[in-house]
Amino acid sequence: MPLPVIYFFTDFGVQGPYLGQMESVLLASCQDIRVVNLMSDAPFANPRGAAYLLAALSRYLPEHAVVVAVVDPGVGSARKALCLHVGRRWYVAPDNGLLSVLSAAAGDCSLWEIDSSLMPAVSASFHGRDVFAPVAGMIAQGQVPQMQPMRREAMVGASWPSDLEEVIYIDGFGNAMTGICASRVGDFQALEVAGQVLRRATTFSSVAAGELFCYVNSIGLIEIALNRGSAAEALQLGIGHAVHVSRR
Amino acid sequence: MPLPVIYFFTDFGVQGPYLGQMESVLLASCQDIRVVNLMSDAPFANPRGAAYLLAALSRYLPEHAVVVAVVDPGVGSARKALCLHVGRRWYVAPDNGLLSVLSAAAGDCSLWEIDSSLMPAVSASFHGRDVFAPVAGMIAQGQVPQMQPMRREAMVGASWPSDLEEVIYIDGFGNAMTGICASRVGDFQALEVAGQVLRRATTFSSVAAGELFCYVNSIGLIEIALNRGSAAEALQLGIGHAVHVSRR
Amino acid sequence: MPLPVIYFFTDFGVQGPYLGQMESVLLASCQDIRVVNLMSDAPFANPRGAAYLLAALSRYLPEHAVVVAVVDPGVGSARKALCLHVGRRWYVAPDNGLLSVLSAAAGDCSLWEIDSSLMPAVSASFHGRDVFAPVAGMIAQGQVPQMQPMRREAMVGASWPSDLEEVIYIDGFGNAMTGICASRVGDFQALEVAGQVLRRATTFSSVAAGELFCYVNSIGLIEIALNRGSAAEALQLGIGHAVHVSRR
Repeated sequence: MPLPVIYFFTDFGVQGPYLGQMESVLLASCQDIRVVNLMSDAPFANPRGAAYLLAALSRYLPEHAVVVAVVDPGVGSARKALCLHVGRRWYVAPDNGLLSVLSAAAGDCSLWEIDSSLMPAVSASFHGRDVFAPVAGMIAQGQVPQMQPMRREAMVGASWPSDLEEVIYIDGFGNAMTGICASRVGDFQALEVAGQVLRRATTFSSVAAGELFCYVNSIGLIEIALNRGSAAEALQLGIGHAVHVSRR
Repeated sequence: MPLPVIYFFTDFGVQGPYLGQMESVLLASCQDIRVVNLMSDAPFANPRGAAYLLAALSRYLPEHAVVVAVVDPGVGSARKALCLHVGRRWYVAPDNGLLSVLSAAAGDCSLWEIDSSLMPAVSASFHGRDVFAPVAGMIAQGQVPQMQPMRREAMVGASWPSDLEEVIYIDGFGNAMTGICASRVGDFQALEVAGQVLRRATTFSSVAAGELFCYVNSIGLIEIALNRGSAAEALQLGIGHAVHVSRR
Repeated sequence: MPLPVIYFFTDFGVQGPYLGQMESVLLASCQDIRVVNLMSDAPFANPRGAAYLLAALSRYLPEHAVVVAVVDPGVGSARKALCLHVGRRWYVAPDNGLLSVLSAAAGDCSLWEIDSSLMPAVSASFHGRDVFAPVAGMIAQGQVPQMQPMRREAMVGASWPSDLEEVIYIDGFGNAMTGICASRVGDFQALEVAGQVLRRATTFSSVAAGELFCYVNSIGLIEIALNRGSAAEALQLGIGHAVHVSRR
């Protein structure tokens, strides 16, 4: 079997030596490992928004993906480090809710707490390089990290709703993704946000330039957009802004 | 023969999950494939400027390169998807002019229209992931995608000039590339832009700090620069700004 | 032996076709080469600050790393191109001080001047693609580039101090790294900067939100930070800003 591909899902940005050092740790453990930077601008220090985004993206990952997910404002505190097995995919991440939405959506899954005290040279501030990437590298090579089984209900975020009626991410073009999975909502007609009702369209090219609309984006979430402009700017949206699905 | 390297040329930016998902599709099809993110800030929604940039960059790609080029404001509309074979290089891209300049510069080439109705799970908004990357993956593995031959003259952009006397790209330092290939212009002495005549220099270190000049950049295009500063800011340049080559 | 991994350390930013072309050159020389973009926002046009950053990062690179370091305001001038062997790691870079700090910290090292007149098609402005990456590719494959031995004392920057009491880098979150290696300073208690005395903390989660502090960052440098905010903004810091370690 080929080695699984390792995916980075972080809020680090592409600046600084952070992603490069995580990739370096993995290549040092095994040169055949492949690393994909899936996303480096997940909602900053916001594991709640990031959890809904990661759950949506996960549906598009290959079967044997290993995901290193780091949105971790509590790094250095006593929060746990988790390892989750869903389907044939593996996830390593802090216990702050980041894995809770995809875990809840899975019929079945296995969850462990990583024994981080066994990791060598753990810095207080960069667990991505010193804990999560090394654990992912071990999993990719079929090794078993030191860890203890944990009940899913004990995760932070275990009681979060399956969909979140809020803006969870704003992309570089000003499109605003919500935490609402369109396939679960069924036949919706519009989205209410910032005092406006935005009608549903199929895609950008089906509305006039300058028009606000909502649509089902490429990862299955309801997204607020403005053809040839920034919806986030036009509606003054930020992460956490409330939205409401309308079926009429 | 080793697998060819696949190059991404897009206007997606490095934000969001877009490049990561395209790379993921390719690795899922074949783990030995190598992906290079050649450029992710091609002129946004501007296939005309991007076409001149792609033609210039192409001269520096290895022989068997496979290029996925996505600058695609018309995604979701009825525009065609193309596959072009020039020399030993392959290109997949929307039919909006993006491939027209390099196609016209080639003595000989082969062009096809991709039968996108055969692609599985085509989203309306992310053909990079759902059409262009999968087709590139097939080509890289020696497979033949479903497609029909097409005449070069039928491409959008078939009648565009071989050089474009305009600014086509502004880099992160404020240097402004033009669509003029220096080797075709011959012995030029200066460039006229924004009411100024900028003399030609060899490189940054041959002019004084703060001085505006033009030079032949590292991909063979005439570029407007300012030593230790931003030429785009100093001259208030944007993409599409007219320039004129002066031979005196 | 597996091929070594090649690391890019540059001030290019992620915009433009620069990193992609350097990677392309390496893959064209050998498809098994692995490239890690260690950092692309090293202090712009500032080889002095970058030298301290590179020395700190180097301690975290694997044994056989090959580093292409390009912070090169003098490209196109007569400055030399260097090749440095420290431990089992290789570095190729311009002779402008960039390699001087890590070279001085090494007990032993070997230094050469690269004979760039032998490189094919050297552009005046992109030695990363045309000189440094090809030389790194040769080294990675066990070939010997054309070069002459050089004394360490003849390098630019040979007399720079081992630590620099200045801000050398500001990351995307506004944390400001200094050029001071904590392990050499010993038992410090605070850092003086911008008229303030910042007490030492272990990490972000050990101080209150909104509090300024200093700590030993994940690459061993003393760093100025603000929990849930930008220290650089709060203190009006820029690269080169003076700092002073306080042992009381």
